[in-house]
Amino acid sequence: MRSVGRLVAFSDGVFAISITLLILEIEPPGHDRSLLHGLLALWPSYLAYAVTFLFIGQVWVNHHVMFDHIRGADRTVLLLNTLLLMVVAFLPFATSVLADALRSGDDERTAVVFYAVAFDVTALTFNAVWQYARRHRLLSEALDPAGATAIGRRFQLALAWLSAGALLGAALPLLGVVVIAAFNGFFWLPIRGEGPRSADYAAGA
Amino acid sequence: MRSVGRLVAFSDGVFAISITLLILEIEPPGHDRSLLHGLLALWPSYLAYAVTFLFIGQVWVNHHVMFDHIRGADRTVLLLNTLLLMVVAFLPFATSVLADALRSGDDERTAVVFYAVAFDVTALTFNAVWQYARRHRLLSEALDPAGATAIGRRFQLALAWLSAGALLGAALPLLGVVVIAAFNGFFWLPIRGEGPRSADYAAGA
Amino acid sequence: MRSVGRLVAFSDGVFAISITLLILEIEPPGHDRSLLHGLLALWPSYLAYAVTFLFIGQVWVNHHVMFDHIRGADRTVLLLNTLLLMVVAFLPFATSVLADALRSGDDERTAVVFYAVAFDVTALTFNAVWQYARRHRLLSEALDPAGATAIGRRFQLALAWLSAGALLGAALPLLGVVVIAAFNGFFWLPIRGEGPRSADYAAGA
Amino acid sequence: MRSVGRLVAFSDGVFAISITLLILEIEPPGHDRSLLHGLLALWPSYLAYAVTFLFIGQVWVNHHVMFDHIRGADRTVLLLNTLLLMVVAFLPFATSVLADALRSGDDERTAVVFYAVAFDVTALTFNAVWQYARRHRLLSEALDPAGATAIGRRFQLALAWLSAGALLGAALPLLGVVVIAAFNGFFWLPIRGEGPRSADYAAGA
Repeated sequence: MRSVGRLVAFSDGVFAISITLLILEIEPPGHDRSLLHGLLALWPSYLAYAVTFLFIGQVWVNHHVMFDHIRGADRTVLLLNTLLLMVVAFLPFATSVLADALRSGDDERTAVVFYAVAFDVTALTFNAVWQYARRHRLLSEALDPAGATAIGRRFQLALAWLSAGALLGAALPLLGVVVIAAFNGFFWLPIRGEGPRSADYAAGA
Repeated sequence: MRSVGRLVAFSDGVFAISITLLILEIEPPGHDRSLLHGLLALWPSYLAYAVTFLFIGQVWVNHHVMFDHIRGADRTVLLLNTLLLMVVAFLPFATSVLADALRSGDDERTAVVFYAVAFDVTALTFNAVWQYARRHRLLSEALDPAGATAIGRRFQLALAWLSAGALLGAALPLLGVVVIAAFNGFFWLPIRGEGPRSADYAAGA
Repeated sequence: MRSVGRLVAFSDGVFAISITLLILEIEPPGHDRSLLHGLLALWPSYLAYAVTFLFIGQVWVNHHVMFDHIRGADRTVLLLNTLLLMVVAFLPFATSVLADALRSGDDERTAVVFYAVAFDVTALTFNAVWQYARRHRLLSEALDPAGATAIGRRFQLALAWLSAGALLGAALPLLGVVVIAAFNGFFWLPIRGEGPRSADYAAGA
Repeated sequence: MRSVGRLVAFSDGVFAISITLLILEIEPPGHDRSLLHGLLALWPSYLAYAVTFLFIGQVWVNHHVMFDHIRGADRTVLLLNTLLLMVVAFLPFATSVLADALRSGDDERTAVVFYAVAFDVTALTFNAVWQYARRHRLLSEALDPAGATAIGRRFQLALAWLSAGALLGAALPLLGVVVIAAFNGFFWLPIRGEGPRSADYAAGA
């Protein structure tokens, strides 16, 4: 079994690169109309950029929360984490597809569902790492069962929320985007009534 | 509360990637005229590249100055810092818009204002991190109030300077570029008459 | 002689960047047909993305296994490792060539061989680092000769496997892709009957 | 004065990203002729990729050699190092210009000189960091004056060699490329007759 230090450093690298590559998906406007008009017409790109940026930022924070409690990585953890990174690194493409559809107005439903599913699969692989580590007793002994359950529930909530986003987006595209944006809000902002313990664990604060 | 080590390492990653991606915005010239002519005609791209590169380099230096004095990050610091990174990662796009307008001569005013506002919002989020940390007593106790005030003023000066750049650029595009380039000069070069203490704090020397 | 810490950190950076750049090779579909159709038609790009991503992830894991046992890097190790990184950084291009050929159906044989050879040369330079370190007594003394032999054999197996992939791909393109994908499966998944010692050494678990 | 740890880590990030971005300058061939033909016709891109990759790899090695002996960075060191990084991050563009000219056969002279000058300016800023650190007594006291002189001479040799490459390339383009490629060979390969001390210092072995 290997210590998780290098796994976390490598993952941070992929998170930082993915988040920064997002901007490459936005092309400067052409010269067929005024620049101001062109820049304003790119609003779907800015929106998609911001939503994905905040989402990856959140995955980064929660990835640290998760690996603070995992004391070692066996080969399966390495593989599951690589699958998680593979989905995160895919998000700039999904973001580009969404922005493209919102700009053109074509196939918005398909694009929103594609985007939401990409987020949802991120949450799925994230949960897979946690569940595997928990079942195979790779969690730190300093973490009591109640804490482990609280964290696991928070991660499952993310999965449920993003699945709902995909389903609602299939019905009403705009609603899907709102649900995903609200997800960012929920996971970033402090939550009223949340005890300090679970706040520490599940929110990375 | 979390130690700031990982936040700083992650931020450094985003700074390093953004600064290096800038070059991707410059396309090699086509074959419709001599290469020498084509390379010379790209001067606005080189100029924009250099100004943004030095600016991000400076944000990197000052980010370290800031977090040397912040002893821990709560969830709001993480969010504010992510917003800062979101703006920094946006700068290659703004740089590309500026270079494009300077090359074509179209809509220079709009492009300069857009570019200056992007820099200005960088300074705004930067100040937000510092003000929040100060108000919520997250600063290191080794930093005396006078030092905290000196640093805060330096950061506020950046905000004022870049706001002026945006306003002046709206009046006279070239002047906006000069003001921003001068900003780089001011924040990088040693300042005559500046005491050693404030030099240490506010300039990262 | 230099310690390997910086070499490993620099290599990890190149692995993380290459793996994340892979997504830039996938273009969002155009508007000449439905988005759903366009996204489904990109399956060769998704396949190539996943295979290369898992391959680079594996190289990363095994690179750590290798350098855990190398106690210092002389100039030749630095050069050989740089050649390894040069091939890894080339893989996004080979991936793009493969996806392009699978999408268009043109020249699949050439593309599969090109892709397999790129993987094979990765394994070749990888073996060169290990063989050089072993012959020049740069291995850690904590590693007994049996362990060194076990690791070396695992690395040689990779070379043989990927060479077979290139040859089989020249005969039957699809078979080449299957052999390379199976390689990922073999090197990632735990192997039944494998003793704990060799598992530790050769598989990074 | 600041310790150089973060400066070196940030610089390593820029080196790793620049070196890995090089591949993005190579486009997969189109479908107007056979893929094999298309891949072979890209030889100038592969050549330029390899030469620049090995060059940046070398700058990375020598940057560590340099900062192993610099005990602290003042503001001017930070600025000079940022200028060095600005030139290194520019190299993918110069590489692309060279490959483009070699492929088309147009304006090879201009392209080779442009490429050689970009390398040369890298060496120039590199020497500026070292000379500044030496004159302002920022070198480690463990380095004796003879060692400092040996390192400085090695760095000056790089500057002279690359200047010669630019001049010779202006006369005969091919010769310029050969001189730069030979530079990589000279700085990477062990040098016969070189004492162990200067080898350690000046070549990073």
